[in-house]
Amino acid sequence: ADAAAMRAAEERQGQLTKPRGSLGVLEELGTRLAGMYAVCPPPMPEPVAIAVFAGDHGVHAQGVSPWPQEVTTQMVGNFLAGGAVINALGRQVGAEVTVVDVGVAGDVPDAPGLLARKVARGTADMTQGPAMTPEQVQQALEVGIDAARDLVAQGNRLLVTGDMGIANTTASAALTSAFTGLDVEQVTGRGTGIDDAMLAHKVGVIRRALVVNAVDAADPVAALAAVGGLEHAAVAGFLLGSAALRTPVVLDGVIACSAALVARAIAPDAAGYWVAGHRSVEPGASAALDHLGLTPLVDLDLRLGEGSGAALSVPLVQSAARVLREVATFDSAGVTDKA
Amino acid sequence: ADAAAMRAAEERQGQLTKPRGSLGVLEELGTRLAGMYAVCPPPMPEPVAIAVFAGDHGVHAQGVSPWPQEVTTQMVGNFLAGGAVINALGRQVGAEVTVVDVGVAGDVPDAPGLLARKVARGTADMTQGPAMTPEQVQQALEVGIDAARDLVAQGNRLLVTGDMGIANTTASAALTSAFTGLDVEQVTGRGTGIDDAMLAHKVGVIRRALVVNAVDAADPVAALAAVGGLEHAAVAGFLLGSAALRTPVVLDGVIACSAALVARAIAPDAAGYWVAGHRSVEPGASAALDHLGLTPLVDLDLRLGEGSGAALSVPLVQSAARVLREVATFDSAGVTDKA
Repeated sequence: ADAAAMRAAEERQGQLTKPRGSLGVLEELGTRLAGMYAVCPPPMPEPVAIAVFAGDHGVHAQGVSPWPQEVTTQMVGNFLAGGAVINALGRQVGAEVTVVDVGVAGDVPDAPGLLARKVARGTADMTQGPAMTPEQVQQALEVGIDAARDLVAQGNRLLVTGDMGIANTTASAALTSAFTGLDVEQVTGRGTGIDDAMLAHKVGVIRRALVVNAVDAADPVAALAAVGGLEHAAVAGFLLGSAALRTPVVLDGVIACSAALVARAIAPDAAGYWVAGHRSVEPGASAALDHLGLTPLVDLDLRLGEGSGAALSVPLVQSAARVLREVATFDSAGVTDKA
Repeated sequence: ADAAAMRAAEERQGQLTKPRGSLGVLEELGTRLAGMYAVCPPPMPEPVAIAVFAGDHGVHAQGVSPWPQEVTTQMVGNFLAGGAVINALGRQVGAEVTVVDVGVAGDVPDAPGLLARKVARGTADMTQGPAMTPEQVQQALEVGIDAARDLVAQGNRLLVTGDMGIANTTASAALTSAFTGLDVEQVTGRGTGIDDAMLAHKVGVIRRALVVNAVDAADPVAALAAVGGLEHAAVAGFLLGSAALRTPVVLDGVIACSAALVARAIAPDAAGYWVAGHRSVEPGASAALDHLGLTPLVDLDLRLGEGSGAALSVPLVQSAARVLREVATFDSAGVTDKA
C-alpha cells in the first residue's frame, strides 16, 4: 500500500465537512483504500466481481456434516442458474458472480459464468494422510491467481471471495488452529448447523488430522496440502493474485479467513489489500480476523458462506471511497470549523 | 404489521436454498418487512427517500457544543448543494435527500430539495423553561407527518430519518433519560466530539433542564415540548406518519432513537414499522435501541448524524427483502435438503 496516498487521505478526512473521526471505521477504510489504489481520493471500487470457488472434501466421509456431498454440485448448479443467495446479493450490489469449479466431486455442465478448472474430484480424507498432493495445491493456488488476474483484466476494481463445499468448515478449522496456534475446540463451529454431538465429533476428527499429518504452520503450502481444501487453496491464490495486482479484495467468512491466514504466511504484505467483509458466527472466523488485525464491516450472525457476508459489505466499501471523493471541505462549502 | 404475511415469510425462509437461519439478522428483518408491507415476499424497499430535519437549540447558549450555532444553517446549505456526507451516501444507495427546515435559526434560501417549514428560529433554552410551546410541538409533529405523507405519495417505499442541529444531542439525551428512566450520565455522549470538561457540564445542563421542567414521560408531548427540539418533534411525526402509511422507516442515530422513544409513547404499534439502521457511538442511542427492542444493522463507530448510519444500512434492508423475493427453494432448484 502507498504511504503517501494514505497520508493524503488522512489529511483530507480532517478537511471534509464532518466532525473529525465521526465516520469511525469508514474513515480508516477510506484511508486504506487510498493506500491500496495508491491515489487520493481513491477511485470508486467498482465494477465488482465475486468469485465463488467450489470444491469437495474427502473428510466428509468422517460424518462432519449433515448434508450429503452432492449438495456441492447441486448448489453450483443453483449458482449458475442465478437462484442462490449469492446471486441475489450480487444483483443487489451490482456485482457479477463467477463460479470456479476447482474441485467439485460431481460433473458440472458448462454454463455462462462457470470457470471449469477442476484440479481433482474433491480432496482426500485428511484423517488418513494429506488432503492434497503438492501438485494439486500448486494447481489450485494457480487457479485462484489466474481468476484474480482475469477479473482484474476485465476491468474489475474490487474483488470478493466466495466459496462452496460441503464439509469445508472442517478444513477451515484445521487451518485456523494450525496458523493461529489456538486449540481446535476454540476455532471449530457448527458450520451449516450441526448439533452438539456432531460438533464434538468434528473437533475429534480435526485433532486427528492435525496429528496424522504433523501439520506445521512454518511450511504454509505443506499445511494447506495436509488439511486444506481445493477451494481454500484457490482462495489463497486469489488473495495473493489480487494483492499483486494492487486490487482490494473483500474476505467473506471462515473459509476466506482461514485461506487468508495461509496466504499471509506465504506473502505477509499481501494482507494490506484485504478488507474483512463481515464477522461470521463461526468462531474460527473471528479468531482469524483477530490474527490478521482486520475489523469486519458487517456483523449480522451470518453463517452461510458463498460470499454472502462479503457481498453485503460492498456498498460500505464503496461508501468509504465515495466520502473521500465527493464530500465538500470546510473551505469549499463555507462551513465554519469547530472552535 | 400483518401476522399472516410474517408467518408466510418465516415458512419461506425455511424453504430457500440455504441452511435454516444461516442469514441471521437478515432473515428476521425479511420476515418483519413482509409483515410491514403485509405481503410475502415483500416488495423491494425502493425507491428510498431520506428526510433530513434541521433545527436549532436555545440550550446552545449553555455551552454544550464547541461548534457555533450558525453551522446548522451552513450545513443545510451544504446539504442543498449536495456536498455533505449524507448526499454522498444518498447517491451511493440511490436515495433522494430532502432537507426540511423545521426550525433553523438562520435564513435558508429556497433551493431544490428544500421543504421550508420553519416553525420557529430554534427552540428556547430548556434550562430556563420549556424548549417549545405546545403549539410549536404540534406544528413540528405535523411537519414530520406531512413529510412522510408526501414522500410516500411520491412512490417511495422506504423512508430514512436524518437530522441536523448543533446541540441536538443535548435534547436527545434529555429525552432518552426521561423515557428510559436511565440516569442522565448513562445516556449523554460526546456528540460531535467534546472533551471531558464539556461533557460533565453538558450532563449538568441536562439535569437542570429535567428538573426545571419537571419532565414526566407519562405525557410524551409535554416532555417533548419541555426538553426536545423542533427536529426531534418532526422526526417523531415522521415516524408516526410512516407507520400510519404502513411504510418502513430506517432510524438513524441518537436523534432518531430519542424521537422514536417519544413516538412509541404516543403510539406503541408504530414501532413495528421501524428498522434500526445503526448503532451510534452515543450511549443514548444504544439505550434507546435496547428500550425499543431493535437490533441495529450497522455498527461502525459512527457519530455524524445527518442520516448517515441509516443510509449505509439501506442496501442491507433491501437485501433482506431481495432474498425472500429471488432465492430459489430446495424443491425448485433440485437441491437435496439436510439429512
